[in-house]
Amino acid sequence: MTPSQNAQSLFDQWQRGNLMAPDCPSRPVLQHLTSRWGVLVMIALAIGPHRFAELRRRVGGISERMLSQTLQELEGDGFVLRTAHPVVPPHVDYELTPMGREAAEHVLGLTRWIEDALPRIIAGRKDAA
Amino acid sequence: MTPSQNAQSLFDQWQRGNLMAPDCPSRPVLQHLTSRWGVLVMIALAIGPHRFAELRRRVGGISERMLSQTLQELEGDGFVLRTAHPVVPPHVDYELTPMGREAAEHVLGLTRWIEDALPRIIAGRKDAA
Repeated sequence: MTPSQNAQSLFDQWQRGNLMAPDCPSRPVLQHLTSRWGVLVMIALAIGPHRFAELRRRVGGISERMLSQTLQELEGDGFVLRTAHPVVPPHVDYELTPMGREAAEHVLGLTRWIEDALPRIIAGRKDAA
Repeated sequence: MTPSQNAQSLFDQWQRGNLMAPDCPSRPVLQHLTSRWGVLVMIALAIGPHRFAELRRRVGGISERMLSQTLQELEGDGFVLRTAHPVVPPHVDYELTPMGREAAEHVLGLTRWIEDALPRIIAGRKDAA
């Protein structure tokens, strides 16, 4: 390969993510979407826009700090849109972007399967014990 | 509701998982499937059975300890089957169970989407900066 072919090949590889490569920028995206709270916030937002406090109520057990951090990560990846309305008292909405809705569909595919499979998973553990 | 209807309703709710509930046993399952390494091990095993060392080579950056722990968690949920062949030197295979293959399909749906969407995600970050 000539240097320019080599560069093109590297570029093409890099354009599409490769999660098996430790340094691929797709890895932090996966982390954000599949973190303990990232998954649950994506599911909640798939229902529709939420204010911060509504989200916190819906996602059982999340702390204010973790919810802020999770929303920032998802906003940084372009999955969540934060809209601050210029009113008193301040009113901030969070909603999925079009790309976030695509991601949420896949997250939902996995989480629905887990919820449905739970009885089988638990039965399997009892058989093994 | 009578007490027995109430009990039945609780039982039905519990049979199917509810990830939004902090104490639902579906939460640790989600954790195992979406942990940093759980996702990548599931993808690797979706290709076919692997020995431990093969898996470690395929999943870039995983340590021996984390691979062991991840495999144990996935085995505990019934997604991975560990087969020790009685030969010298010891030879242990890891493969997905039928239930693990179902789970892997959903994990793959999400990871393929992330790999494909990566150029858009990165472009979005540049626009925002």
